[in-house]
Amino acid sequence: MSYEMLGPLRVVESAAFIAAPLAGLILAQYGADVIRVDAIGGGIDYGRMPRMPRRDGQGRSLYWTGLNKGKRSIAVDVRRPEGRELVQQLAAAPGPDAGVLLTNLGAPWLSHGVLAALRHDMVTCTIQGNGDGSPAVDYTVNSATGYPMMTGSGRDGPVNHVLPAWDVACAHHAAFLVAAVVGRRRRTGEGREIFLALSDIAFSTLSHLGVLAETEVLGQERPAIDNYLYGAFGRDFVTADGHRLMVAAISAGQWASLVEACSLSDEVARIEENSGLDLRDEAQRFEAREPIAQALEAWFAKRSRSEVETLFKAERVLFGPYRSVAELLDSDPRVSLANPVFERLDTPGIGSHLSAGAAARIPGLARAPSRPAPLLGTHTDEVLHEVLGLSGAAIGKLHDAGIVAGPERDPAAKA
Amino acid sequence: MSYEMLGPLRVVESAAFIAAPLAGLILAQYGADVIRVDAIGGGIDYGRMPRMPRRDGQGRSLYWTGLNKGKRSIAVDVRRPEGRELVQQLAAAPGPDAGVLLTNLGAPWLSHGVLAALRHDMVTCTIQGNGDGSPAVDYTVNSATGYPMMTGSGRDGPVNHVLPAWDVACAHHAAFLVAAVVGRRRRTGEGREIFLALSDIAFSTLSHLGVLAETEVLGQERPAIDNYLYGAFGRDFVTADGHRLMVAAISAGQWASLVEACSLSDEVARIEENSGLDLRDEAQRFEAREPIAQALEAWFAKRSRSEVETLFKAERVLFGPYRSVAELLDSDPRVSLANPVFERLDTPGIGSHLSAGAAARIPGLARAPSRPAPLLGTHTDEVLHEVLGLSGAAIGKLHDAGIVAGPERDPAAKA
Repeated sequence: MSYEMLGPLRVVESAAFIAAPLAGLILAQYGADVIRVDAIGGGIDYGRMPRMPRRDGQGRSLYWTGLNKGKRSIAVDVRRPEGRELVQQLAAAPGPDAGVLLTNLGAPWLSHGVLAALRHDMVTCTIQGNGDGSPAVDYTVNSATGYPMMTGSGRDGPVNHVLPAWDVACAHHAAFLVAAVVGRRRRTGEGREIFLALSDIAFSTLSHLGVLAETEVLGQERPAIDNYLYGAFGRDFVTADGHRLMVAAISAGQWASLVEACSLSDEVARIEENSGLDLRDEAQRFEAREPIAQALEAWFAKRSRSEVETLFKAERVLFGPYRSVAELLDSDPRVSLANPVFERLDTPGIGSHLSAGAAARIPGLARAPSRPAPLLGTHTDEVLHEVLGLSGAAIGKLHDAGIVAGPERDPAAKA
Repeated sequence: MSYEMLGPLRVVESAAFIAAPLAGLILAQYGADVIRVDAIGGGIDYGRMPRMPRRDGQGRSLYWTGLNKGKRSIAVDVRRPEGRELVQQLAAAPGPDAGVLLTNLGAPWLSHGVLAALRHDMVTCTIQGNGDGSPAVDYTVNSATGYPMMTGSGRDGPVNHVLPAWDVACAHHAAFLVAAVVGRRRRTGEGREIFLALSDIAFSTLSHLGVLAETEVLGQERPAIDNYLYGAFGRDFVTADGHRLMVAAISAGQWASLVEACSLSDEVARIEENSGLDLRDEAQRFEAREPIAQALEAWFAKRSRSEVETLFKAERVLFGPYRSVAELLDSDPRVSLANPVFERLDTPGIGSHLSAGAAARIPGLARAPSRPAPLLGTHTDEVLHEVLGLSGAAIGKLHDAGIVAGPERDPAAKA
């Protein structure tokens, strides 16, 4: 579902992989008209796994279609000067609501300088790997953040995160930057070139969370501590019937709830006496995490998940289940049509599936159904006519010359 | 460093922990006047680890000061009606640039309804755990995403991420929402109440990245595959002198570079012959990841880091080192004053340390030095005078009655 929040705004996206396409998706979900430009046949991310099964291995990518919902697609041969010129004209098209490019490809022929010569108030948001223009991706940035060394047990070396967390943060930040700079252009008439480096997002997060200062000022490095949370008490526990739950007691109130729900006050008194610690203090709870966890392990081992959940809900303990994605889809109402953030989409070449729209809930503002990710070039003719004012004959010539293409054939359509 | 990007904008923040404070920090770094309201003595996150060493355990939190850079601080006793009324008046203060509240506390006395009665075009952004108002934090949401089961080796159960990735994504999204809804208010005159749930951010990310559809449509669940990346080729390798590097070959070009740099074409031909796979295709590279990694392990084991880096840079291989935070601070120019995103701050109670400002790079737009996180209540009098127009005498009475406080004493100041 999408909201009309951003006002009339057209964004041309020339991008691949996650950060820039996800930024474009967020902008589309809040009402921007996002036109994704791809090479004829698709860019380097068009076939990324997972893909629909097809004998020739060319089934549609669930990754690409997840990231490109609600956008319009135009397919252009950008190796040829005529194709490049079309994309330049699209990006720098006239009108107060146009003139915004979102990219992570860094193509010199689509640089801010080239576009600003066509339109003085051009806005360009370029996502980079590193700020000096050198390449980096989530995996090669994350390895330098120190986080893999703090993850898991620490016994078998660093553990990479699987969620591309820096790409995701970078995408949301880029959407923020576009909203901010377009707002600024509306007030001042000025365009801007903005660069956002994935590594700057990652390393600035380390600063904001106090991780850099902890090492610089205190000379400390956070150890890998399995699934314990840092700085208070929290860990995963397994119930008698084999279900795993994450439990957290960060605030004093959450700790009191946990102690009450698990009738743990005698054990807590014993731990406090043996250790000289005051477990009402979060830092001292962190220090005593192992004896606390031992006491809780014994408690969980005697109770089923349903008993635990009943007690925890009654005392408002902060906890959550571990789930596989299948379990999440089967049994969690937060990932279902019971949640207004979700809807069913029918994506060409894929079929019907659950899909998330705009994440915010805004009472009184209408939500419109999302459109699925387009087939490549679905909107080629429409965009060339609407945005560039080309006639049917002119568009026909571009097709004949192989400068533009689309729409591609729906792989699910009958032969 | 901060930019003037958002135009005149005042945001009142009543918040704790990460998501809402980080959203406020991002807004401050792009020019908003963010006034953080705290209880006298600090809210529940004021002492979160890591803290400066002090005999009484009450040293300043490097976490809190990291998240509250560049904000103004007012300390108010919000248990008392007079204190609550002051905060309501601050949040709903008149003027086109005011009337924005950012919160994750869900206090009924600071609800949108209460504030909209004071100011019809009030904007409120409330970050929740779950969309139904039930509590959840990064740890208890993450456990349900399936990611812990895909992380690490899979042999010792699920592995939690250590980076609070959903909090971080939620923060950037909330900053986007505030920029968008304030832009909308400037155009339409309308205020809005916005809710953003941490779990909606997490589960919608699973949709956008194709993870939900992979399970729903294809019936597949991603396995835990150590530090291999999914869907192409990438993994960590150790050099002869014991340094670990992350290597990725996602695109065809990156794969060609890796094969060239490691003179691996004979090995590749052998793997292709044995397996019947075409390693130029990313999905087939993923299938053949183990024999590829074996060949690379042998190659890395014979070479020092500096040899590897020289070869990789010459061939533009996509790679990055693993670093601890100490190594990052010691030797990575991306986390130093050589990077314009970074600056040195002198934070009261902490001293001088490296700190990140706004992550974007915007040629031609001036960057101003950031201010450090304030001591609690540093701006109490200034804010009461400036925003609410209170006289010195009226402010004095509030102090005398214990309704407001500050500034607290700098713990580093001489006695």
